[in-house]
Amino acid sequence: MTFRVEKDTLGEVRVPADAYYGAQTVRAVENFPISGLRPHPALVRATVLVKMCAARANMATGRLDSRLGDAIVRAADECLAGAFDAHFVVDPFQAGAGTSHNMNVNEVLANRANELLGEERGRYAPVHPNDHVNMAQSTNDVFPTAMRLAALRVAGDLRPALEGLVAALRKKSAEFDGILKSGRTHLQDAVPIRLGQEFEAWAVALEKNLAAIEGAVPGLAELGIGGTAAGTGMNAEPAYIDLVVAELARETGFPLVRGANLVERMQNMDPFVALSSALKGLAVNLARIANDLRLLSSGPRTGLAEIALPALQPGSSIMPGKVNPVMAEVTDMVAFQVMGADTTIMLAAQAGQLELNVMMPVIAFNLLFSLEILKNTVPKLADACIAGITADRERCLRYLEQSVGLATVLAPYIGYAAAAEVAKESTATGRSIRQIVEDRQLLSAGRLAEILDPFPLTSPGVP
Amino acid sequence: MTFRVEKDTLGEVRVPADAYYGAQTVRAVENFPISGLRPHPALVRATVLVKMCAARANMATGRLDSRLGDAIVRAADECLAGAFDAHFVVDPFQAGAGTSHNMNVNEVLANRANELLGEERGRYAPVHPNDHVNMAQSTNDVFPTAMRLAALRVAGDLRPALEGLVAALRKKSAEFDGILKSGRTHLQDAVPIRLGQEFEAWAVALEKNLAAIEGAVPGLAELGIGGTAAGTGMNAEPAYIDLVVAELARETGFPLVRGANLVERMQNMDPFVALSSALKGLAVNLARIANDLRLLSSGPRTGLAEIALPALQPGSSIMPGKVNPVMAEVTDMVAFQVMGADTTIMLAAQAGQLELNVMMPVIAFNLLFSLEILKNTVPKLADACIAGITADRERCLRYLEQSVGLATVLAPYIGYAAAAEVAKESTATGRSIRQIVEDRQLLSAGRLAEILDPFPLTSPGVP
Amino acid sequence: MTFRVEKDTLGEVRVPADAYYGAQTVRAVENFPISGLRPHPALVRATVLVKMCAARANMATGRLDSRLGDAIVRAADECLAGAFDAHFVVDPFQAGAGTSHNMNVNEVLANRANELLGEERGRYAPVHPNDHVNMAQSTNDVFPTAMRLAALRVAGDLRPALEGLVAALRKKSAEFDGILKSGRTHLQDAVPIRLGQEFEAWAVALEKNLAAIEGAVPGLAELGIGGTAAGTGMNAEPAYIDLVVAELARETGFPLVRGANLVERMQNMDPFVALSSALKGLAVNLARIANDLRLLSSGPRTGLAEIALPALQPGSSIMPGKVNPVMAEVTDMVAFQVMGADTTIMLAAQAGQLELNVMMPVIAFNLLFSLEILKNTVPKLADACIAGITADRERCLRYLEQSVGLATVLAPYIGYAAAAEVAKESTATGRSIRQIVEDRQLLSAGRLAEILDPFPLTSPGVP
Amino acid sequence: MTFRVEKDTLGEVRVPADAYYGAQTVRAVENFPISGLRPHPALVRATVLVKMCAARANMATGRLDSRLGDAIVRAADECLAGAFDAHFVVDPFQAGAGTSHNMNVNEVLANRANELLGEERGRYAPVHPNDHVNMAQSTNDVFPTAMRLAALRVAGDLRPALEGLVAALRKKSAEFDGILKSGRTHLQDAVPIRLGQEFEAWAVALEKNLAAIEGAVPGLAELGIGGTAAGTGMNAEPAYIDLVVAELARETGFPLVRGANLVERMQNMDPFVALSSALKGLAVNLARIANDLRLLSSGPRTGLAEIALPALQPGSSIMPGKVNPVMAEVTDMVAFQVMGADTTIMLAAQAGQLELNVMMPVIAFNLLFSLEILKNTVPKLADACIAGITADRERCLRYLEQSVGLATVLAPYIGYAAAAEVAKESTATGRSIRQIVEDRQLLSAGRLAEILDPFPLTSPGVP
Repeated sequence: MTFRVEKDTLGEVRVPADAYYGAQTVRAVENFPISGLRPHPALVRATVLVKMCAARANMATGRLDSRLGDAIVRAADECLAGAFDAHFVVDPFQAGAGTSHNMNVNEVLANRANELLGEERGRYAPVHPNDHVNMAQSTNDVFPTAMRLAALRVAGDLRPALEGLVAALRKKSAEFDGILKSGRTHLQDAVPIRLGQEFEAWAVALEKNLAAIEGAVPGLAELGIGGTAAGTGMNAEPAYIDLVVAELARETGFPLVRGANLVERMQNMDPFVALSSALKGLAVNLARIANDLRLLSSGPRTGLAEIALPALQPGSSIMPGKVNPVMAEVTDMVAFQVMGADTTIMLAAQAGQLELNVMMPVIAFNLLFSLEILKNTVPKLADACIAGITADRERCLRYLEQSVGLATVLAPYIGYAAAAEVAKESTATGRSIRQIVEDRQLLSAGRLAEILDPFPLTSPGVP
Repeated sequence: MTFRVEKDTLGEVRVPADAYYGAQTVRAVENFPISGLRPHPALVRATVLVKMCAARANMATGRLDSRLGDAIVRAADECLAGAFDAHFVVDPFQAGAGTSHNMNVNEVLANRANELLGEERGRYAPVHPNDHVNMAQSTNDVFPTAMRLAALRVAGDLRPALEGLVAALRKKSAEFDGILKSGRTHLQDAVPIRLGQEFEAWAVALEKNLAAIEGAVPGLAELGIGGTAAGTGMNAEPAYIDLVVAELARETGFPLVRGANLVERMQNMDPFVALSSALKGLAVNLARIANDLRLLSSGPRTGLAEIALPALQPGSSIMPGKVNPVMAEVTDMVAFQVMGADTTIMLAAQAGQLELNVMMPVIAFNLLFSLEILKNTVPKLADACIAGITADRERCLRYLEQSVGLATVLAPYIGYAAAAEVAKESTATGRSIRQIVEDRQLLSAGRLAEILDPFPLTSPGVP
Repeated sequence: MTFRVEKDTLGEVRVPADAYYGAQTVRAVENFPISGLRPHPALVRATVLVKMCAARANMATGRLDSRLGDAIVRAADECLAGAFDAHFVVDPFQAGAGTSHNMNVNEVLANRANELLGEERGRYAPVHPNDHVNMAQSTNDVFPTAMRLAALRVAGDLRPALEGLVAALRKKSAEFDGILKSGRTHLQDAVPIRLGQEFEAWAVALEKNLAAIEGAVPGLAELGIGGTAAGTGMNAEPAYIDLVVAELARETGFPLVRGANLVERMQNMDPFVALSSALKGLAVNLARIANDLRLLSSGPRTGLAEIALPALQPGSSIMPGKVNPVMAEVTDMVAFQVMGADTTIMLAAQAGQLELNVMMPVIAFNLLFSLEILKNTVPKLADACIAGITADRERCLRYLEQSVGLATVLAPYIGYAAAAEVAKESTATGRSIRQIVEDRQLLSAGRLAEILDPFPLTSPGVP
Repeated sequence: MTFRVEKDTLGEVRVPADAYYGAQTVRAVENFPISGLRPHPALVRATVLVKMCAARANMATGRLDSRLGDAIVRAADECLAGAFDAHFVVDPFQAGAGTSHNMNVNEVLANRANELLGEERGRYAPVHPNDHVNMAQSTNDVFPTAMRLAALRVAGDLRPALEGLVAALRKKSAEFDGILKSGRTHLQDAVPIRLGQEFEAWAVALEKNLAAIEGAVPGLAELGIGGTAAGTGMNAEPAYIDLVVAELARETGFPLVRGANLVERMQNMDPFVALSSALKGLAVNLARIANDLRLLSSGPRTGLAEIALPALQPGSSIMPGKVNPVMAEVTDMVAFQVMGADTTIMLAAQAGQLELNVMMPVIAFNLLFSLEILKNTVPKLADACIAGITADRERCLRYLEQSVGLATVLAPYIGYAAAAEVAKESTATGRSIRQIVEDRQLLSAGRLAEILDPFPLTSPGVP
């Protein structure tokens, strides 16, 4: 490998000759060999967008020479098209506040812009990474802005995925609406319910999670860009601030607004905590639904087996013919990851000090990882699992008829205490509630038939 | 102690003669000697309210005899006035889903209602705890409804507390608006800021937390009452459901509505997860603010000492004259408690199975504990700490003038690289940025005075 | 109420006339109306013990006049006997580092010692709370020492409770050793296992958790007492340090040793983090076992119903005759509480700064709460649940015979692929593995009987 | 790309022609496009080792034909040498229990073994992935065994890294042993301490964390291999079990032993919970130390500036000359990641059901990620930060002389109350404790000089 020598404020650095990044990126790569991972593409893209829009805003205010600014914008365009993906090389675990990430982008854009202007990489003239690409910006306002934009983008991909899952559940809800079964509370026999009602309840729960995720958007969309180093806006002209926000809104289509208080916007990680909390809420329900699916499909012989999940892959290396609920299982694991990420994000958010929260990179990493794995898991759960679920109508009905929970139907007629006696006999003898009531002649045959008609029992009303 | 003997569906139980509770409560006390604590008063009150409103609704539909119903309502009124506080004795760690708590309330009300009707305690006639007090209800819809009402009530107390804290911060923000100081990012010298801006940013952050807590209200206000045992509403007439919700709304003044899907309302703990997440978000910012206060008031001689917190108590048993930031410290501890509670609530919420989440009692305990300690801490922080903060104007200004961060002001004029040279010299020699620029004659004296005028540096703009 | 007026270094304070505590305690009560709770008795007792042993050590070194010292020791003895329980009134959420708790104990002992010497309360002569009761001590070494002693004591109560639970599981393991059933992995049919093996595995797991809790003892037993204000030991004579540790070891019977590095002992909360982690590990297994119990006892008609748990209380306010696994459920909730407490303790432990961790009170509160609820829950789980479990031998065997997992037995003879064909046919048709093999004549009848003999299948070996 | 067609028990699958993996791996890749990540190399290596040792053990018992067995061993050797790294392609978020990971390894080894025997890939004869490579194994015992081996290996790399950090701290402790400074408790002036004592306390704390990590080894080293599908050992001969454990011990050099209860070993994730807890404990102290470093090096002008950290990279894109404590900051972020991972691992561990914990893959992912980032961060912290720290001796001494905490020295001579008066005057006037005592003539000049001699104040004793 050949190298060029660059100089930054700390001295000389050897940079790979073909790299678009420069000295500070190389220092960061050497300083932070932590996870071996690279930045999430959405974070790179968002940071490049900030640079592009800042360049346009700075040209509009007249502070940035348009020859330089145009070159920066062209370089950014090429970045967005993916031309320099290999040059964003700083570990997500890096310098506090993301300075290294920001400088990686500044250097790539500066080098490419200079190249477009006929100069060599590594000279940083006429376009300088700090003076021009980073003009009127600080890592401290650029990085959280890029986090917001990246989070909005990946959350935007999660939305249709969740809508698809809700739709898949609802389709099954309709399909299974006539399947009567016994409810279970405390995992014990309870009153009748329809299988379709169970799927519908899951759909409704996820719709609420989706709404909660949407509820995090305004907090993310209120940008701190323009606050520069401490949120006070030093070195950023007021007109520039409005322009850069407008440019970003136009480029992204997000409902972006300028922060009402840029000092607060810079130090308060609440929008990320709030989004992570909403994702955690989603994870709670995804785990719950996955667990219910695993329980209802348990078997085929030694479990409840009310439903069957599609067979996706052989389930065991030793047990032939075994088929496991793999998509529900991976959903659980993804949910646990998201929950743990929420702990990390909380820790990082509360560790902010004075004008800045330097823990932003670990927030960005976990938030984008959670969004990424959720957006990838949810459609697989919908398409490869929910959509193919079949139900065992007879088995469901058999459970209902045997359920000791049916004694509940009797209580309004014979009282709680007498009904409990019937239930106890049923538990002890294995005979059904219906049989015992008939034998004891507690109710007339007609009345009994009427009040034990299962379908009405699954809706409000005293039978 | 004397006892009476009661009988429930499992057999005979000795109950203290003067107790208003009955057999099932006694069983619960014996089964759950776990924490030694009693239920939060707001949870008792809310459960009694549900019983009162259910009795009225059941009378209105004609299902409950008005002589019995009126007695239940009168008994409930006495409960709400505090007459039977000593009779709610079940440990918060108890039977899944809160059956024991619900039966405790059913028994107290039944015994008192019968007493009002001239009968003895322990006979459960004419008013029966299950058949009449619990009519058209199940623990499974009563308990989460009571949790919602209790959470709304205590959250309602937190609101003015937080508004008071925001107001206290804002008052100080105005008072300190003219105090210039150095910002600090990464705990390192940064650009100028005004002390008032720091207080204002905290106020804005807390306002957003307050809004997030308010955002949790609609989820809590959508009630699952009427779903009975499995959310399907068996044994609850449709008219009753609307009536009980209306009664509860009237009694509480909360914007309560009937759940759109009662099956979902019963199993989905999301409203509690969401409120806990909002409290966690508040805790994150309270901890951050408390930490900043502790840092800025560090000293008096060996710290930053830009501000001084009121002395509330001697700070040390061994170090005479020590005064510690106790209110900020307890705020941190309360914040950590709330964050841990959020983990517990998440665990409990994801552990729901099928028609029910039996882990509700531990959710209720932690949510109400978090709300309680927050609502008690926040006004103390406002009144006993924030309101009495004083600032050291000279010390703040001295920091500003010495800050190496002032080199940032030069960058737009002499470029990032040249400004960095100035900063390095300042760091190495201890001389101020101003002195070095003067000596090097990098800028004219007039221009330098102009761009180093500190007040404008704390707002957007290139000096 | 009548009051006396006391004076501390901040001024005058009104103290209830009959209180043994004094001015600083009153200030703390006013400053910290947070949770309404009082200190755990084990923490009070441990702090009093430190004071008693310190007084003896200070008399032994000759620094403390024996008339005063003896009075302090006598007052401490009375405290340990419970005479002043009502006078330890400071909220667990209080001044950083526990200064208020320490001063509460100093004041009670000083007032009582003076009383024993014929003086009035509130005068603090001849015995002064700081100069004599707190002699050679600081909150900073007393409070963490008291935390260690209190944790060791309550953990000491947890040990026999856990041993009892292990014994109860093992008794059932022996009782159920001959009950053959189908294993379940992924909640799907797997290979045979004996019910006794399941109980034994739980016992072994809990034994390991017990050993882990024991493993936390040495860290707790290495005391930082003598470090005084900053761990350096200023104002504490070397001889005193050895003496106080020896006295504490003698009084408590714990294997206490003097810290090798008192600076480290004071600031490093790792012994508490480690104990909490061990409790969390226990909680993980308790929750897992409780969940398995709930699953295996699900039913009676709509679940697995392989075992039945004792009926402890009526399970539902609406469903007559319902009996729920309440002891397993409360175990889950306790486990979730312990897990959340672990988060709080971690947060507090990492928040230490420089010479001290001021977050100790919230660590103490959560650690002792976790220990308390665990030590109370575990015996109830053993006695009221495990000890009374019964098994349904026939049902277990029926599951085994129908299990598709039996196909695994065939693999060594006919290969994985062929065995999978058998399994698929079994799943599709509902016929047992045995029947299909017989029909297909894949193995001779004798060979088949031999390899499907279930008992040997539950131990290592190829049948 | 060209493909071959393979067939598994669910049907035909197109496999890339040049892949060493097979049908089940392809299904897994299609089913789990979740994180885009690949398995940690240590997990692949460990799984291959299990296969190699199992083949040897199976040959030794005579069950596996040595021609096939030798081929498997040779293929495994090639894998360990890295020849097939590109063929382990299953996402860490995958099928419950790691079946897909196990089958990926089985397939690669089978295909390569057959190739070595002159056959084509994709035919699985004579070596079959299930019947031969997986002989006497199940994912359920292989995967947790591989997790243990991988964790032991990466933890083995962490050990010298931590020892290096301890040594670096200790070197500085010796270097700074003569630097006197003021201690700070509650971030407020406290009694004198030496800078070397602060570094020594950190070293001691980390030594304890290292010991705790070592304490997790025995739990990891007790293997469940041989338990096969349910821990009962079906299809695994007793001799094989001992042999495979012995082979693994020989190959790895780890103190591996056969599990005392294989049923327990399979379902109890406690060894992983325990290791994660130990890592969390380490993270707590790393974060605490990093925070102290950031605080003590705050400045250069507006902070404490008692020490200076090496400058590793320019600290700001906007503030020229800024140098941030980047290595301490990244340490904090790594610590937060490890803490969040501990939450995920806890969640997964408690989600085990009956004979198996299917959540193992997410445990493996997080545990290995935590170990990886810790082992990479710790040496950088030692070498690039700690080793280059310099101290400002004069500044430290100046703080000491001004510290109000010096009033503590007076208390044994003039009493706590009188000393507090001195402290209050010092705080109010800014004059030093020494000056005030001199002015007030509270002690003779000689006595005062004696008791304020700072060095002795940093060790136990009354001056």
